[in-house]
Amino acid sequence: MTQAAAGDLDRHVVELDRAHVFHSWSAQGALAPMVVAGGLGCRVWDHAGREWLDFSSQLVNVNIGHQHPRLVAAIQEQAALLTTISPPTANLARGEAAKRIVDRAPDGMNKVFFTNGGADANENAIRMARQFTGRDKVVSTYRSYHGNTGAAVVATGDWRRVPNEYARAHVHVFGPFLYRSEFWASTPEEECERALRHLARVIECEGPASVAAILLETVPGTAGVLVPPPGYLAGVRELADKHGIMLILDEVMAGFGRTGDWFAFDAHDVVPDLITFAKGVNSGYIPAGGVVISDPIAAHFDDVVYPGGLTYSGHPLAMASIVASMDIMADEGIVENAARIGRDVLGPGLAELAERQPLIGEVRGRGVFWALDLVADPETREPVAPAVMGRAKALMLERGLLPFLADNRIHVVPPCVVTDDEAGTALAVYDEAFTLLTKELA
Amino acid sequence: MTQAAAGDLDRHVVELDRAHVFHSWSAQGALAPMVVAGGLGCRVWDHAGREWLDFSSQLVNVNIGHQHPRLVAAIQEQAALLTTISPPTANLARGEAAKRIVDRAPDGMNKVFFTNGGADANENAIRMARQFTGRDKVVSTYRSYHGNTGAAVVATGDWRRVPNEYARAHVHVFGPFLYRSEFWASTPEEECERALRHLARVIECEGPASVAAILLETVPGTAGVLVPPPGYLAGVRELADKHGIMLILDEVMAGFGRTGDWFAFDAHDVVPDLITFAKGVNSGYIPAGGVVISDPIAAHFDDVVYPGGLTYSGHPLAMASIVASMDIMADEGIVENAARIGRDVLGPGLAELAERQPLIGEVRGRGVFWALDLVADPETREPVAPAVMGRAKALMLERGLLPFLADNRIHVVPPCVVTDDEAGTALAVYDEAFTLLTKELA
Ligand SMILES: Cc1ncc(COP(=O)(O)O)c(C=O)c1O
Ligand SMILES: Cc1ncc(COP(=O)(O)O)c(C=O)c1O
Repeated sequence: MTQAAAGDLDRHVVELDRAHVFHSWSAQGALAPMVVAGGLGCRVWDHAGREWLDFSSQLVNVNIGHQHPRLVAAIQEQAALLTTISPPTANLARGEAAKRIVDRAPDGMNKVFFTNGGADANENAIRMARQFTGRDKVVSTYRSYHGNTGAAVVATGDWRRVPNEYARAHVHVFGPFLYRSEFWASTPEEECERALRHLARVIECEGPASVAAILLETVPGTAGVLVPPPGYLAGVRELADKHGIMLILDEVMAGFGRTGDWFAFDAHDVVPDLITFAKGVNSGYIPAGGVVISDPIAAHFDDVVYPGGLTYSGHPLAMASIVASMDIMADEGIVENAARIGRDVLGPGLAELAERQPLIGEVRGRGVFWALDLVADPETREPVAPAVMGRAKALMLERGLLPFLADNRIHVVPPCVVTDDEAGTALAVYDEAFTLLTKELA
Repeated sequence: MTQAAAGDLDRHVVELDRAHVFHSWSAQGALAPMVVAGGLGCRVWDHAGREWLDFSSQLVNVNIGHQHPRLVAAIQEQAALLTTISPPTANLARGEAAKRIVDRAPDGMNKVFFTNGGADANENAIRMARQFTGRDKVVSTYRSYHGNTGAAVVATGDWRRVPNEYARAHVHVFGPFLYRSEFWASTPEEECERALRHLARVIECEGPASVAAILLETVPGTAGVLVPPPGYLAGVRELADKHGIMLILDEVMAGFGRTGDWFAFDAHDVVPDLITFAKGVNSGYIPAGGVVISDPIAAHFDDVVYPGGLTYSGHPLAMASIVASMDIMADEGIVENAARIGRDVLGPGLAELAERQPLIGEVRGRGVFWALDLVADPETREPVAPAVMGRAKALMLERGLLPFLADNRIHVVPPCVVTDDEAGTALAVYDEAFTLLTKELA
């Protein structure tokens, strides 16, 4: 294809899109979507060959990088064998995927219910907790996202819940977030203690015997990469145990390498009753998600009919992609790479950047899961205006970096396979963009 | 692999499954899942080479048949190019899939929102109707299934709703079903008229200005293949128009060839405001579903942010499978084949069977979408007992036929590519099984 023809193709793709594709979470009128034609590792490109370093991992899901050859080959192989079969059957890929996942989960969690993504994983975990406890209420946090379906979107805390409040028995609390404390705290210890006290008080007032589950992102992601302070999750676990409440940890974004661990909670002193997952489990090469179930909850449904299900639960092609992805991540030390990059490159690099760049109010994260909290004023910590974020994005795109934006933050979330070089390039782009932006704002 | 080794593999698959896979809509303790290792066209087999004629299309979704070579090749090709990319981007496969679908939809429906399956398609259609109308309530029927997530499962009418009633603003009505009329009707005309009157009365009593949507399966599927009488859907459309209510037609099971048309409503005098689809759109080779949106609803969201979305909306690999599947169905006349088989083979064949077999109370359907309503007594129309259904299933499986069972019914739902020979074989198996069953029951 000539360069001109390739440019025409990009234009054609945008035209088709604007004519017929309805997009998530947007007003449709003013969209000008970027064309993506292909990718490899940490890079994506359009038809004309413009290339970007993907520091978004798309929606923080392509943990293994784009188009990993061995994962692509595994999908092609299973496609030739058997793409789809209904949930009541038994299938080798399905059993092996479940086995791979429970092998990484804590002892006493031996069964997996598969879904198509994160929202329906949370729907089913909530259902299991309600059925198991015979209680209704689900407690989750205001700084959270759990998916767009009936229960998941009302468990969600952020603005996306508000137009969608058609589910009952959801209660929201504030979680620990020292930089923007809701508890007038000034140390991590104080923040932790007060967040636990707040949660305990809300549960007391709701009636502990009415609470089926506490649902938390282990590390709230879209809400700002809010790594919980030491002791918080253990405190939540204790509270849950005291009242017979199920603890659901949403590992959809945080799990499978993102934090430098297989499960983000591996770095915390906690074991949940239910784990929800999607995204990183197979980097989204085929839509898939699910719930890892603790033995007592699974056993409850030995005799009682589980009242949930979906046509593509345990879809063989999705399952084969999970098996291959987890094997590749193990063989190639991809989770370890994420941990190392976080510890040795991104952690120190972003801290240094924050020292130089007054726009950066706080850097938080671990592994390949970081947020830069951008502020108009370091004293008041007032978030920068949306227009500033738009400009930051443009400056980074111009420099060949695809960033991840959320509210007043840049999330630094490359694939877990990111190299030292790529991390260095990204740090330089962030630096240049912030320097220009600060000048423009002065 | 030797026969013994293949048998061992089947046992291993079941063991893995029982240890680690949690199944949909079941008590887990007593499951003895059938192993499926592969398939082609209308046939599936296990590792040991036992083969079944698939007259279930799994969950009535494999419309194109198992492992269609051209569809498999298209998936392998797109896998090599780009498997996954986030919803805000533009991508050729995504635009082409949307174009293929709107080309088959009525005039004035030009945009598609993609999901992972049927449940989230209905969630999003309900959301669109609520946002567009500014109203809350959704009216659906007791004889229906719409999916397992928050709103979809409460829109559902059957037993699966009952343990899951956590969503508000859902109202249920009875639809037309002459064989088991809720309206003391004795002709199709009477049933139609009374069902419309009942719907109108419920809407009146609920307050028409509070009703956002009427959500109907065009042909209720799992509930018993209830083809609506002539005039019913036109009557519903009229009622909806009178009150500014959106009409959502759920074509998840009925669409894309199942009834012998691209959309089941093509055979009825009705155009909906929103169409939900999944299953047959790509025969489930990759999880996918979506909503086809009428122009006024789409335009509403040009300026207003649409408050819904999901990570895998418009997933390139799923999209490529839609494009290929729709092209293959067109090129190979697969929809026409479904219509012809229904008209010339299954329709007459099942009618003849019903004359011979007193167990069959009624035959209903069209295309490759039929139900045999099994009764203990043709006079009272009392459904046969569950044990009879279990025995029917065993007799059919023994004879190499994989049937689809729902309540007291056998649904005759082969892939749309089913041949005259295969239909003949299945008719003979049904006949033999019912003859034996009748003897056993005597
Ligand atoms: C923590 C978390 N949970 C759930 C979801 C929903 O996943 P999906 O978009 O696959 O439904 C997301 C998606 O971003 C997420 O980040
Ligand atoms: C009519 C109808 N709508 C919706 C669904 C739900 O689809 P899914 O299982 O893909 O969520 C089904 C599934 O059987 C269905 O038959």
